[in-house]
Amino acid sequence: MSVSDASDLDSAVRDGQRRAVARALTAVENGLPGADALVDALYPHTGRAWRIGITGPPGAGKSTLTDRLVTAFRERGETVAVVAVDPSSPFTGGALLGDRVRMDRHAEDDGVFVRSLAARGALGGLSEATEAACDVLDAAGYDIVLVETVGVGQGEIDVAEATDTTLVVLVPESGDAVQAMKAGLMEVADVFCVNKADKPEASNLVRALRATLHLRDVEAPAVVKASALEGDGLGALVEALDGHRARLAARWDEIRAERLRRRVRRLVEGHWRRDFWTGGRADTLAEAVRELDAEGRAPHALAARVLAGGLRRP
Amino acid sequence: MSVSDASDLDSAVRDGQRRAVARALTAVENGLPGADALVDALYPHTGRAWRIGITGPPGAGKSTLTDRLVTAFRERGETVAVVAVDPSSPFTGGALLGDRVRMDRHAEDDGVFVRSLAARGALGGLSEATEAACDVLDAAGYDIVLVETVGVGQGEIDVAEATDTTLVVLVPESGDAVQAMKAGLMEVADVFCVNKADKPEASNLVRALRATLHLRDVEAPAVVKASALEGDGLGALVEALDGHRARLAARWDEIRAERLRRRVRRLVEGHWRRDFWTGGRADTLAEAVRELDAEGRAPHALAARVLAGGLRRP
Repeated sequence: MSVSDASDLDSAVRDGQRRAVARALTAVENGLPGADALVDALYPHTGRAWRIGITGPPGAGKSTLTDRLVTAFRERGETVAVVAVDPSSPFTGGALLGDRVRMDRHAEDDGVFVRSLAARGALGGLSEATEAACDVLDAAGYDIVLVETVGVGQGEIDVAEATDTTLVVLVPESGDAVQAMKAGLMEVADVFCVNKADKPEASNLVRALRATLHLRDVEAPAVVKASALEGDGLGALVEALDGHRARLAARWDEIRAERLRRRVRRLVEGHWRRDFWTGGRADTLAEAVRELDAEGRAPHALAARVLAGGLRRP
Repeated sequence: MSVSDASDLDSAVRDGQRRAVARALTAVENGLPGADALVDALYPHTGRAWRIGITGPPGAGKSTLTDRLVTAFRERGETVAVVAVDPSSPFTGGALLGDRVRMDRHAEDDGVFVRSLAARGALGGLSEATEAACDVLDAAGYDIVLVETVGVGQGEIDVAEATDTTLVVLVPESGDAVQAMKAGLMEVADVFCVNKADKPEASNLVRALRATLHLRDVEAPAVVKASALEGDGLGALVEALDGHRARLAARWDEIRAERLRRRVRRLVEGHWRRDFWTGGRADTLAEAVRELDAEGRAPHALAARVLAGGLRRP
């Protein structure tokens, strides 16, 4: 599938037509021809939706919590799109929908859209694919886009870079905490939710988090206890998220401009890196390195040689 | 200070003259003129030293453990250089030496060299500065270079990239574990040391680490309990480190070539990024983004414009 009918697709997405939205997401997910033009056409119609990243270790209850948040936002009349991002999934969009049967309760609700994103095709990586998917759903008129990470690893940071508010979900179990704390989650969290709050260790984790967060010289994120399974603590969680949104609102234009600048830089550097190292340069470098070991050449001389070979497009 | 007498310095470093080594480290740390040529001149004389990165949260006892490792390696006749890397330090080399009085016991030992590294000047960032410092000490003839990270954050990953073996030191306290586990340490560790092993929670941490590490599809790193303060467990720790070294030895040429290739790519991309975004392009982009918000332009079009403006050196 290409997106040669991009202009039609563009307006159908902006009408909020669900099939058009699904096609547009497939296009940006796989970096299909025309996807960039589609994103460019939709971009001026974005900036309205609140993009919330939901991340944390496997087993933290992210999906159940996401489901609860959908219900909470729907109850106050907001429309919600859910994007489940799996950087490691070998499948294209829709593959994870089987896991998401619990979202079925929203299946009859036109105000909810659920979609998985595998994100293997986009230049600029997971950040760009996620940001483009959010653009599609934003332009389609959804008030809130929840981006749930499914995999483990650097994906969390990329998703945080692409969203407005990052919610990190943890559970009070040391094995899980070990996994949770890697990959710089402390740095990107805007709100922490300690899920499974009925467990006795929950208060310890809340205390440890607050003590650690206090060491940072930025405004400390809120730490909220909840139980997604029981539906407890949802009010306080939504309140903490709303609080972060209110802080964003005060400098929204600035945040948006900064994000666009970062995104263009990422795209430019991505293009350059791809184009520069292809066309034989990577092979030439690998060959030169083999030579270099033999003849005693050196890193800076080699870098200068590669650069002299051309900063031009190969 | 410049390094105009680079060729003299080069041979003095290779003679292992301590003052020359200190000057060479200052040069690479601050990216002084001539530092690149010096590194290039020394590079062919490197590849002999074993470079061990020692990382983990503040309070884990890294410095005490480093001191113990120096003693252990000296006892079996190896010479040792210690580099304390502090990415956030506003001081130049030597600033941290006051903290390191406990290393005084090695002060009379010509087989030990201790030095702090602030690493603010080098193109290619902390990885490059660390790698260049290791090159200097390697060429100066030290058998082992211990690189201890002092700060918190991404520095750990950069140091891991620049060394052969990464030792991650943790302590069995949940607050510390919270800090320890961020920033992807799980991914870069070759050996874990659970320090303060006399604490009752130590076994839990060892178990949690092993369980987590087991989830990865690579060979799981060794997890060793020790008490740096008491000097317990040092034999097992050295054995685990030696074990990793033996695994490296089997494909040493390959590892070294791969590292050099990665380093040259990093240098080339660093040069390009610096040169590309200076010369007005960053300002032009920022201006264009402001325009863009007003006139409804879009990310890919903007990236194309920036790229069309030139992949040439500005």
